[in-house]
Amino acid sequence: MQTDVQIAQAAKLQHINHIAAQIGLQAEQLEHYGKYKAKINPQDAFRLPAKRGKLILVTAINPTPAGEGKTTVTIGLTDALNHIGKNAMVAMREPSLGPVFGVKGGAAGGGYAQVVPMEDINLHFTGDFHAISAANNLLAAMLDNHIYQGNALQIDPKRVLWRRVVDMNDRQLRNIINGLGKPTDGVMRPDGFDITVASEVMAIFCLAKDLVDLKQRLGNILVAYSVSGSPIYARDLNAHGAMTALLKDALKPNLVQTLAGSPALVHGGPFANIAHGCNSVLATQVARHLSDYTVTEAGFGADLGAEKFCDIKCRLADIQPDCAVVVATVRALKYNGGVAKADLNAENVDAVQRGLPNLLKHINNLQNVFGLPVVVALNQFVSDSENELAAIQAACTQIGAQCALTQVWEKGGTGGVDLAEKVVQAIETHTPKFKFAYDVNLPIADKITAIATQIYGAAKVEFAAEAQAEMANLARLGLDKLPICMAKTQYSLSDDANLLGCPSDFTLHVRGMTVSAGAGFIVALCGNMMKMPGLPKVPAAEKIDVDENGVISGLF
Amino acid sequence: MQTDVQIAQAAKLQHINHIAAQIGLQAEQLEHYGKYKAKINPQDAFRLPAKRGKLILVTAINPTPAGEGKTTVTIGLTDALNHIGKNAMVAMREPSLGPVFGVKGGAAGGGYAQVVPMEDINLHFTGDFHAISAANNLLAAMLDNHIYQGNALQIDPKRVLWRRVVDMNDRQLRNIINGLGKPTDGVMRPDGFDITVASEVMAIFCLAKDLVDLKQRLGNILVAYSVSGSPIYARDLNAHGAMTALLKDALKPNLVQTLAGSPALVHGGPFANIAHGCNSVLATQVARHLSDYTVTEAGFGADLGAEKFCDIKCRLADIQPDCAVVVATVRALKYNGGVAKADLNAENVDAVQRGLPNLLKHINNLQNVFGLPVVVALNQFVSDSENELAAIQAACTQIGAQCALTQVWEKGGTGGVDLAEKVVQAIETHTPKFKFAYDVNLPIADKITAIATQIYGAAKVEFAAEAQAEMANLARLGLDKLPICMAKTQYSLSDDANLLGCPSDFTLHVRGMTVSAGAGFIVALCGNMMKMPGLPKVPAAEKIDVDENGVISGLF
Repeated sequence: MQTDVQIAQAAKLQHINHIAAQIGLQAEQLEHYGKYKAKINPQDAFRLPAKRGKLILVTAINPTPAGEGKTTVTIGLTDALNHIGKNAMVAMREPSLGPVFGVKGGAAGGGYAQVVPMEDINLHFTGDFHAISAANNLLAAMLDNHIYQGNALQIDPKRVLWRRVVDMNDRQLRNIINGLGKPTDGVMRPDGFDITVASEVMAIFCLAKDLVDLKQRLGNILVAYSVSGSPIYARDLNAHGAMTALLKDALKPNLVQTLAGSPALVHGGPFANIAHGCNSVLATQVARHLSDYTVTEAGFGADLGAEKFCDIKCRLADIQPDCAVVVATVRALKYNGGVAKADLNAENVDAVQRGLPNLLKHINNLQNVFGLPVVVALNQFVSDSENELAAIQAACTQIGAQCALTQVWEKGGTGGVDLAEKVVQAIETHTPKFKFAYDVNLPIADKITAIATQIYGAAKVEFAAEAQAEMANLARLGLDKLPICMAKTQYSLSDDANLLGCPSDFTLHVRGMTVSAGAGFIVALCGNMMKMPGLPKVPAAEKIDVDENGVISGLF
Repeated sequence: MQTDVQIAQAAKLQHINHIAAQIGLQAEQLEHYGKYKAKINPQDAFRLPAKRGKLILVTAINPTPAGEGKTTVTIGLTDALNHIGKNAMVAMREPSLGPVFGVKGGAAGGGYAQVVPMEDINLHFTGDFHAISAANNLLAAMLDNHIYQGNALQIDPKRVLWRRVVDMNDRQLRNIINGLGKPTDGVMRPDGFDITVASEVMAIFCLAKDLVDLKQRLGNILVAYSVSGSPIYARDLNAHGAMTALLKDALKPNLVQTLAGSPALVHGGPFANIAHGCNSVLATQVARHLSDYTVTEAGFGADLGAEKFCDIKCRLADIQPDCAVVVATVRALKYNGGVAKADLNAENVDAVQRGLPNLLKHINNLQNVFGLPVVVALNQFVSDSENELAAIQAACTQIGAQCALTQVWEKGGTGGVDLAEKVVQAIETHTPKFKFAYDVNLPIADKITAIATQIYGAAKVEFAAEAQAEMANLARLGLDKLPICMAKTQYSLSDDANLLGCPSDFTLHVRGMTVSAGAGFIVALCGNMMKMPGLPKVPAAEKIDVDENGVISGLF
């Protein structure tokens, strides 16, 4: 069997000028990065006639070690829509270098449902993440330099909130003490690094409407408190102008293609726990402007990804989805039904039935909380039995969700025709009634409770003392009327990773809270969030190589 | 008066396809980065007929706070050569983000002798430095991960040589302790960050002949010692393949243009103290292949930059310069003659005479140690008097060096016509007799002594105990037959920054030694080398801004 990188390298790509021509853009309007990648100026796109494409959100059940293939389905659905004569684009996230060199490998789809050139997309691409790292770290350097050079703002070195970033899985940098050495080597304080995708700059980048909005949001980053407790913002350090200069090219969405030649915008990629987990607002808006159907995805399961897509991204960008696709697999539902990973190949309809409530809960949330029509993409594996597939299809139909079998990994767009047709039908027959899960003007605790009870199925929410203190602090700073970004485990609807299926009668524990004042959301922390992954015992990097002609192998 | 960025923004640039056509490359052979930047595949260049261009090295007297304008002269001379009907290209270094946000501002020339697009070149350009940072930091993460995951190689955490890098002036990161926190957060050890240009990966990148050579050199990096004293190389961690994958696109030279439309290769930029301080070998070789005259520069004064250019770069790349241009100014010579910076505007022929020995020593070295014809570029300022200029010209002529007045900052290429004509004449009338300053197979101490006595004018060299121990260690490892990279102050021919002019009868103190086994040179440390600069009290970054149309201001 061919690996993803082999399939991608064997593909005959079209020049990006041809892909751009499909969506009405001239070659002269592109900022080329080689022959197969280009940045688009959103203004050029918005000057073209508005198609106001239908927006299809691809989300999933709670992720399992079995793998669901959400990105693959997102790309395959786009190709399938074009295959049946619709006009579709995909807007999706850029991969981080961390997972590429760690365990996961690339993040540009798989099999015959990939965006290409996959090596470029998985490595530096057009440099967006490097620009985000540089902007993040410039702010950090300016902050520490301010403290060192007399500290006119009276920043408390023990209350610096801003951390440095590197686009690498590097556990060694999670907790450090810096400013050691001689008096000229800075001011000693505890600090640490996160991975770039966890930077608030990444979240801001993905929510900014334009350069002016970007600069304003960067200026609004809360970086520290003074010794007297006053908030210190990035604008107080005069850092936001130079940060914007570093990001001005990166902010333009990146145009590439799928293996089938569908236009794809791959742009931005914030974490889905401490941030909102979806591609840039600008990429989504450009795609909607230039296509009849825009397919996009959100991180993790629907409890985290879809909820934030609706309540944070759609709210701030003033857009709304027209349909939700929930990706599920027989194997993942069996895992949710209590089957060990090693036993997932054996037929077990009972386990499927036990796991189904997880899928049904997500469908129910999307239909009833957010008012969206739902189509289930049942991503097929060779080990799936007819009986298992039938059990899932029957359960979905019963609650009014269409269910389509997809084989896009193996067949590309033709493996997603049934899904594409059901999505089109769902959109055409549905009367829009999209709504948010909560009113943003409610008190913080009420907004969190609305999410926990409606979306997760919690009986109640408990706020630790630290979380309560921070809620009071945010109200003091006037930063409480923002949407909520829940940071909890992706593996369960609850805050306990071991509670699979559809738990009920549980208490959600909010242990702490932080604000991303520039991005414009409050992060509710349920448990410890890992903002800097580590490498495994044998990192994927050890197998990556390049030959004398520059051909990369082992990317996964 | 217009700022450099204003002059650059007002220029009408040619599409990079037109610049490429000048040197025989087709548009299809370029890897475009927008309309005005492109990467060149060296293989495409080498397939064209070889022009074997004359190689002109631009160097300078010891730098002073008065500023000499070496990069400006390098660019202006290229434009001047083309202006008088020759076929010239420039090969020069890429700027680092550190100085851009710190004190210095950009590094793409000045006035009417600039390479453009200057904002892009000064910010992310084509991402080369980001790729170098990522490759450096991947190796660091893999090394610490190896220690954490059982440490099969028995790496001594107290003898790790490899540091992380960031392309930022950030003194706070010079000395850190990392691996703090919980047992799962790595292994606590002392560490620190350098600026990207100080990375050995940068030096390797600039000396590599091709991808295969790059990978081998990366594998040869000495990263640590085991508890029993065995050397640990990057190849022992299987890191060099993935590092090469990160660098494969970056290794292609970047083509841009001067304000006058001369083709310019801007590629790589290692430090000139702990590394060799000149642009990539590949860029120089491509430029020589495609032009009749290649103008290039080396960092700091001729004692550091030109010596390393000849003894390290030319030796490893098997090339040789055909002429040396030494940049000097009346103001810098007065400073060398003991005049304070505030008093440099007043005429003072005596001070010029007192400073002249510095210039004459560099000319003498280039003529007699390296066997090169020398032309002095006397870079004019409005404050220079006729008498001062005449004194310098007379002294140069007396020792057989032509001296040309240049006004390239103000007039571009037309301000360098005299210089260009004198350079062409020097090359045409000189019989090549280039030689190195030392035999690479001599013992380390003898090589250092040869540089110190011949080039610097030292009476003798003293090696501290630490340096002696490392010389023995390098002989033990078989790493002693490498060229020497002197790391000393750039402000004096000696190792004492306060000894201006042409000191004699001094002792050079070699305090320590390190090896860049991948790059292929031994670094002799004379004093403390700053590998991570800091920001000034008011960083240049505070004045950088972007308007709603993406136009950058305040870059300097």
